[in-house]
Amino acid sequence: MHEKASGTKKIVTFGEVLMRLSPSDNRKLLQATQMDFFFGGTEMNVAASLAHMGIEVQHVTNISNDIVGEAALSTLRKYGIGIGAVQKVNYPLGLYFLEVGSAMRSSQVAYNRVNSCFANITPGQVDWEKVLENCQFMHWSGISPGVSEGAYQTLKSGLEVALRKGVIVTADPAYRSNLWKYGRSSHEVLKELISLSTIFIGGVNEINEILKTDFSTDEKGFMAASRALIAEFPKIQKIFDKVRTSVNASWQKIYGRAWNGEEFLTTNELEITNVVDRIGTGDAFAAGVLYGLQHFDDKQALDYANAACALKHTHVGDVNLVSVEEVLEVANGKTDGRIKR
Amino acid sequence: MHEKASGTKKIVTFGEVLMRLSPSDNRKLLQATQMDFFFGGTEMNVAASLAHMGIEVQHVTNISNDIVGEAALSTLRKYGIGIGAVQKVNYPLGLYFLEVGSAMRSSQVAYNRVNSCFANITPGQVDWEKVLENCQFMHWSGISPGVSEGAYQTLKSGLEVALRKGVIVTADPAYRSNLWKYGRSSHEVLKELISLSTIFIGGVNEINEILKTDFSTDEKGFMAASRALIAEFPKIQKIFDKVRTSVNASWQKIYGRAWNGEEFLTTNELEITNVVDRIGTGDAFAAGVLYGLQHFDDKQALDYANAACALKHTHVGDVNLVSVEEVLEVANGKTDGRIKR
Amino acid sequence: MHEKASGTKKIVTFGEVLMRLSPSDNRKLLQATQMDFFFGGTEMNVAASLAHMGIEVQHVTNISNDIVGEAALSTLRKYGIGIGAVQKVNYPLGLYFLEVGSAMRSSQVAYNRVNSCFANITPGQVDWEKVLENCQFMHWSGISPGVSEGAYQTLKSGLEVALRKGVIVTADPAYRSNLWKYGRSSHEVLKELISLSTIFIGGVNEINEILKTDFSTDEKGFMAASRALIAEFPKIQKIFDKVRTSVNASWQKIYGRAWNGEEFLTTNELEITNVVDRIGTGDAFAAGVLYGLQHFDDKQALDYANAACALKHTHVGDVNLVSVEEVLEVANGKTDGRIKR
Amino acid sequence: MHEKASGTKKIVTFGEVLMRLSPSDNRKLLQATQMDFFFGGTEMNVAASLAHMGIEVQHVTNISNDIVGEAALSTLRKYGIGIGAVQKVNYPLGLYFLEVGSAMRSSQVAYNRVNSCFANITPGQVDWEKVLENCQFMHWSGISPGVSEGAYQTLKSGLEVALRKGVIVTADPAYRSNLWKYGRSSHEVLKELISLSTIFIGGVNEINEILKTDFSTDEKGFMAASRALIAEFPKIQKIFDKVRTSVNASWQKIYGRAWNGEEFLTTNELEITNVVDRIGTGDAFAAGVLYGLQHFDDKQALDYANAACALKHTHVGDVNLVSVEEVLEVANGKTDGRIKR
Amino acid sequence: MHEKASGTKKIVTFGEVLMRLSPSDNRKLLQATQMDFFFGGTEMNVAASLAHMGIEVQHVTNISNDIVGEAALSTLRKYGIGIGAVQKVNYPLGLYFLEVGSAMRSSQVAYNRVNSCFANITPGQVDWEKVLENCQFMHWSGISPGVSEGAYQTLKSGLEVALRKGVIVTADPAYRSNLWKYGRSSHEVLKELISLSTIFIGGVNEINEILKTDFSTDEKGFMAASRALIAEFPKIQKIFDKVRTSVNASWQKIYGRAWNGEEFLTTNELEITNVVDRIGTGDAFAAGVLYGLQHFDDKQALDYANAACALKHTHVGDVNLVSVEEVLEVANGKTDGRIKR
Amino acid sequence: MHEKASGTKKIVTFGEVLMRLSPSDNRKLLQATQMDFFFGGTEMNVAASLAHMGIEVQHVTNISNDIVGEAALSTLRKYGIGIGAVQKVNYPLGLYFLEVGSAMRSSQVAYNRVNSCFANITPGQVDWEKVLENCQFMHWSGISPGVSEGAYQTLKSGLEVALRKGVIVTADPAYRSNLWKYGRSSHEVLKELISLSTIFIGGVNEINEILKTDFSTDEKGFMAASRALIAEFPKIQKIFDKVRTSVNASWQKIYGRAWNGEEFLTTNELEITNVVDRIGTGDAFAAGVLYGLQHFDDKQALDYANAACALKHTHVGDVNLVSVEEVLEVANGKTDGRIKR
Repeated sequence: MHEKASGTKKIVTFGEVLMRLSPSDNRKLLQATQMDFFFGGTEMNVAASLAHMGIEVQHVTNISNDIVGEAALSTLRKYGIGIGAVQKVNYPLGLYFLEVGSAMRSSQVAYNRVNSCFANITPGQVDWEKVLENCQFMHWSGISPGVSEGAYQTLKSGLEVALRKGVIVTADPAYRSNLWKYGRSSHEVLKELISLSTIFIGGVNEINEILKTDFSTDEKGFMAASRALIAEFPKIQKIFDKVRTSVNASWQKIYGRAWNGEEFLTTNELEITNVVDRIGTGDAFAAGVLYGLQHFDDKQALDYANAACALKHTHVGDVNLVSVEEVLEVANGKTDGRIKR
Repeated sequence: MHEKASGTKKIVTFGEVLMRLSPSDNRKLLQATQMDFFFGGTEMNVAASLAHMGIEVQHVTNISNDIVGEAALSTLRKYGIGIGAVQKVNYPLGLYFLEVGSAMRSSQVAYNRVNSCFANITPGQVDWEKVLENCQFMHWSGISPGVSEGAYQTLKSGLEVALRKGVIVTADPAYRSNLWKYGRSSHEVLKELISLSTIFIGGVNEINEILKTDFSTDEKGFMAASRALIAEFPKIQKIFDKVRTSVNASWQKIYGRAWNGEEFLTTNELEITNVVDRIGTGDAFAAGVLYGLQHFDDKQALDYANAACALKHTHVGDVNLVSVEEVLEVANGKTDGRIKR
Repeated sequence: MHEKASGTKKIVTFGEVLMRLSPSDNRKLLQATQMDFFFGGTEMNVAASLAHMGIEVQHVTNISNDIVGEAALSTLRKYGIGIGAVQKVNYPLGLYFLEVGSAMRSSQVAYNRVNSCFANITPGQVDWEKVLENCQFMHWSGISPGVSEGAYQTLKSGLEVALRKGVIVTADPAYRSNLWKYGRSSHEVLKELISLSTIFIGGVNEINEILKTDFSTDEKGFMAASRALIAEFPKIQKIFDKVRTSVNASWQKIYGRAWNGEEFLTTNELEITNVVDRIGTGDAFAAGVLYGLQHFDDKQALDYANAACALKHTHVGDVNLVSVEEVLEVANGKTDGRIKR
Repeated sequence: MHEKASGTKKIVTFGEVLMRLSPSDNRKLLQATQMDFFFGGTEMNVAASLAHMGIEVQHVTNISNDIVGEAALSTLRKYGIGIGAVQKVNYPLGLYFLEVGSAMRSSQVAYNRVNSCFANITPGQVDWEKVLENCQFMHWSGISPGVSEGAYQTLKSGLEVALRKGVIVTADPAYRSNLWKYGRSSHEVLKELISLSTIFIGGVNEINEILKTDFSTDEKGFMAASRALIAEFPKIQKIFDKVRTSVNASWQKIYGRAWNGEEFLTTNELEITNVVDRIGTGDAFAAGVLYGLQHFDDKQALDYANAACALKHTHVGDVNLVSVEEVLEVANGKTDGRIKR
Repeated sequence: MHEKASGTKKIVTFGEVLMRLSPSDNRKLLQATQMDFFFGGTEMNVAASLAHMGIEVQHVTNISNDIVGEAALSTLRKYGIGIGAVQKVNYPLGLYFLEVGSAMRSSQVAYNRVNSCFANITPGQVDWEKVLENCQFMHWSGISPGVSEGAYQTLKSGLEVALRKGVIVTADPAYRSNLWKYGRSSHEVLKELISLSTIFIGGVNEINEILKTDFSTDEKGFMAASRALIAEFPKIQKIFDKVRTSVNASWQKIYGRAWNGEEFLTTNELEITNVVDRIGTGDAFAAGVLYGLQHFDDKQALDYANAACALKHTHVGDVNLVSVEEVLEVANGKTDGRIKR
Repeated sequence: MHEKASGTKKIVTFGEVLMRLSPSDNRKLLQATQMDFFFGGTEMNVAASLAHMGIEVQHVTNISNDIVGEAALSTLRKYGIGIGAVQKVNYPLGLYFLEVGSAMRSSQVAYNRVNSCFANITPGQVDWEKVLENCQFMHWSGISPGVSEGAYQTLKSGLEVALRKGVIVTADPAYRSNLWKYGRSSHEVLKELISLSTIFIGGVNEINEILKTDFSTDEKGFMAASRALIAEFPKIQKIFDKVRTSVNASWQKIYGRAWNGEEFLTTNELEITNVVDRIGTGDAFAAGVLYGLQHFDDKQALDYANAACALKHTHVGDVNLVSVEEVLEVANGKTDGRIKR
């Protein structure tokens, strides 16, 4: 792959940092006396992935003003994420419990985030003008505006500044039915925020939800849905989607497809026969799209994103910690996993 | 599935509680410095599985009068099993060591149970009249009468009371060649005890052993063997069997089949491509049969038992700790293992 | 010690069940990747301690309707606590993080309980008439009414029923400044609730807070304070106090003192030179008082409570899991800790 | 210290190998899901300690013919113990569970050894003539003859051969009341076996038990008891004793004293303020006596044994794994524990 | 399989002992706070595998004179490897870090061995005449001469003595490009050492490297390459090769093939669908060849080696710790991995 | 304490980053299968401690270009240390193994650092002019110049630039006899480097080594030695010393003393009765001196340093991770270690 020339590559992300608590070895919580913990969260996962690939990233969020927040902040720093726009506030950090499934047993999640430090964020806390200075990309997901009115308003004000400054805005409109308890319609909010975005990371199901259409999920449907999305939201330039086949919780297949307004792009399917960790794989795809758009052409970006997504399944935690070289190798077809001495 | 109306659903089980000691991560014992431990045992596994599904269960057994017995008793309580008929005696708790195999390497087991507290049980210790009051099912397996004369006599006296009281008796005639050291013929004893039972949980191999026949293991053979069993033991009303294909230690396939005197029933085959724990899967099937017979028709009961058996492979320990909802989902065909948020 | 004759010994406790999350080996949270977890909470600790000593106990609380609540409930059952008055509701379980100090470094705690399932309890959820049937003691602490209006009201209605039924009410008026955020004055509420109680478990500092006095903490001050408390709250019959000297986080000394309206009682000082876990030691004292009042005279009860408190420092977790025999041995002066083979 | 010249230094030990199972971090068994395990046993501990110090040692015992025995045998080899006289038999390895106490809480032990492979040893299994060839010392303890008639007879036949061959026989007459269930009087057996021994490792309490005397435990009493013992058993040449003060389970003090027929010897008291593991400390003392008698004069041997005993308290497991250099350093008074870089 | 009659079966191996450090659960090093460690190294793995199968083996190497070397030596003893020719020197033990891959993610290795104790070995340190007395096989790999001039010279002098004494010399010419930094041409050295060997354990790629040929890797190519190798190195009598298909890091297939100068031999392909540990599998094959040549005919030896290689994938560590019985079972076609009770 | 006004507070440190590998629970290496690991090193410990207290710090060093270096770099970032002057080179990271002693057993250390990435540093790699821009303090220890000629030259060139720029240079002349293998006299080198320093962190022993004097270690000796040091090295303005009493490995006492050219200062003695980790305590003192000099007067700085040193004993790892508030509390006399809720 040939790298694109580029000026600044700074990326800004916005979203909640959650602590994940999970018994190891596929234990049920009631069988365990210990849990592993990780710090993650959709947009932070994207940030960490990009920082680990050497990109300058700044994450905008609230952290709890206690020993948990101290550990979360250490983790952001550890991954190389800029923390200049992180605030400590007197609310607990959001968290979730995860029982890791296998084969036909699904993983189960229990959240504790309703009154978290991030849910209490307000637009006045973030100086978006400063944060978005010299920034190339701003990334958001549909999780954040579902958390609270404050999170929604803070994000919206950021997107408005971003558009004004010519920042590319990537949107991952992940809809989660267990959020959106604060009184707004998810449909209205997501439409508004997508109208402020330029790259759409999602597929036919997401488009159908937003447009209230029912395109089919095959190639034709994807292209039609993409065209309809752009027709409705003309700022959107490209759509990147990953297609997942869940053989079972331990065995996944994925490939990527995209529409850039001109051509339909697709990748090989990658097969993860022994999943180590399923969490954060969509975020690894999104980070791959951003890194790819910074460095490669659209086809290569899609291959890169697909490989990054596959590789996230192979190690624990919410964050993709493989190197650019490892992603490129898989993107270029080397999937035999032979030892590197 | 539609639930059957029902009066009491109390179930009584009888059998040894064993401590299982096992190095994690597929280690050989000589590579380890730690072992995980669990309390289990064929009939206790059935009891725990049912209690976890919300059924009132009482387990009849002996426990050691020491720190090990205290922990075993805590575990019974934790699972919600009634302990009113558990006695503390001055013999050690039986135990076994397990090296967990993978791929073509078999798991290996070493027992230490010959002189255990359960082996020293006597009929006089159990007030079966009281224990079996208001009881719908009593469950036993062929392990218990193989342990000692006392265990055999205690079980037999219980089955006699059960039959007299109209309790449904489920028999899992698991034959283990490394037991039966106390002088009785396993063949004679098992025949006697099956003659006191009403539901048979086993397949062609077990029937062939009991009847000294050689029916084939295909569908036809299963039906013929079932008919022959009922001919010999007219109290038996239904036969429930699971058919296992062991691709290797890490990859198993199972499906269920049954004969209820009228029709041959069968299920889809479920595939566990990444086995987490192979122990207790037969017991999960048996518990599924009991729960199914309490709540559903025979076909649904078989689907439920098969799904319960498959799901036991997906978490560690001897006991099936998934919920009724999780079992029903798999029984109804959802096996993709997608995350539940 | 000689046991008192007694009729029913059922005890009812009311309070929050919290998950405690704590890195092992005195790690700071930012140094860890795993945490041990336990379920505890002031009044549940008293309940578990008593149940472990063989007393019939019922705990009244709310549990989250998720995998965390399932594990909490399993733990209550494991300890032998009656769960008939536990409800599952759609709020997360309260929890706290603990960094374990040593020597001159204090342990640090971060709470996440403001919006917990317990904080959302309401008086209508508990049928106190039924719960307190045939009950000898009801125990509460000053934590619960500090959590929320609902917790306060629920407790108050329970105490009123208890008094009416002649139940002995034990009060541990532990004041925590980081609670009491919901609008009530802690001083007013605690006075009201103590006026509904019969045994006071606390010392000079607690009495000074309640009466707005400033008695000294020496023996004289303790007796004067006790008399003043009884003068103000004539239902109070006895005051049990433990006196702690914190040499440092790893080295503690404690002794007990009491006033029963007639005589001043005191115990030997016990020294814990290598503290394993400091949490729950006050609750172990309270449980010791209750067990002691059920079984012994006041002096013996005080010795028993003091020994129970000391022994809680010697194992991890919030709950005192030593046996009655172990407590009696220490209460009777055997503190050399020789191995029991 | 100056080393004594010496020919062969081979030592033979006889006794049971037990697996010890113990939750870490002072947990009660009912709080744990994992246990650490170690292989030990009084005489094997002596053997391992000596082998680790570079002495040729052979241990005579039975091992189970399973994965547990395989791991036990690997451990003997790992410590450098000769295994030429170890037999694999079809009985389980003996084992015990240990809950580790702290401060005033005693450690608790639960045994499972009644029907162990060692209990089933018979004199015919051991070719003592060959085993004791070119042997300088043979060591036994009072545990072994308490296990079973076979163990007693096997030991007795070994001691007879040893005496005939001029081997020095060291006796540690540890009496354990929870053994001796097979029909013999411990008093008679121990007297018989001590009459076949030449070095006595024990103190006033042990002598009083054997002679049915009641000497006091002070210095005078020790000397009088020692003289009385030699009067009764004239083959005994020297008595080595350690005097322990158990401040509590975490804090121990020890010093050594001895009578060699001519002079009374004593050491400084060593203080272990933060005990890591209390098990096997007596065996470390015995091994120190043997190593000391091989290499030093009696006073130095006593200092060496005392230091070895103290150092065993500072690391986990049944076996003393410090080096000769570390023992000598402490024996020579350096107890400040400064880091060695 | 029928065992061959045989006189001595002593085997001598020569090579570096390395400590392997590896986070568990497929963690990246930067995610971990702990690492598992193992002692291994190509030729030591062969030695340990053979010793575990009951063969007398002696390993020639240098060990560090510190706590790490002490642990390494304990491990050699534990496996039953003779350590009479192991020296302690004042250089650190070589080591490597391993991040364990899965699916398409490769394992990654980082070495720290340039200045290790083994790299500093010299021919004068080893008395080959004595070491190779009564020895049937001597085994070496291409790793050792790549480490340093001293390692190369020491190995060469050993091979010369071996040939003179009629010892069978097995060569595994594993080429590692990250070694060979000390100035010699790997090509020249390996040719010289193979000219001193009699059994070649390697395949077409290795032969092509040595002969600078380009035979194809199919059956025909293998036979042609084997003939060419023997033509060039007439002391070589047999070539044993394993053929690996790496589906991905977690899924491997292997089969063996051989040329003994007369016939082409091949085995069934074995499939490891859930790899536990990929390290040391080639060494398990080599050990299988040696054991096989000692006990069986060539075809059986190849089957045995192939089964041993497959089984090494099923447990952690560098060393194959399954039993002869387990290997034979798989060699004879039983690969279903059913539990052995 | 009152904070001093101050301009820049940037601090630069120079030295090796080592990986520490250590079995937990006081295990000997030969008893373990796992090790905890930490990244530390004298000067990095100072850097991390200061960064954790909120100071801007930059550390100058070399890191290995592999997965170990990646983890080390992540750790520097995690602590908030500036990594702009860290280079990745193709040599392994230095490391050491630690067996943690207790009571009279000393900790033992085995190093592997002779050929490390840091040992291969050269003056040309560091742009000291840029690194020391706007810097208030530069800190070095006597470890670094003992590692290699390159480390010595690199440090010297840094100190020369520092002095020219008016940076305060703090010297901790820790002498380690196991370093200094590359040909220089430690005495000559340390004298040269101290002549380039302004604050001396060390005591009478260090001064005696440097001046070849033999001042006594009492208060008088300390003052005389301090005066003599300043007489010889007139750039030195202040001497800060900690005085340690090692009761044993688990029990330490420390106090600080200082001479600032005008007055003798001293602190209370702090007692750590249950040491968690002894490593890095001197570095915590040095960091405390630097933080203290930046923020307080000399007496307060000494109290702060002494408290920081004591608190480092209370948690694992090489780095002091308590907060400024925790240090101040102990410095101000609160050492009772009560829980902070």
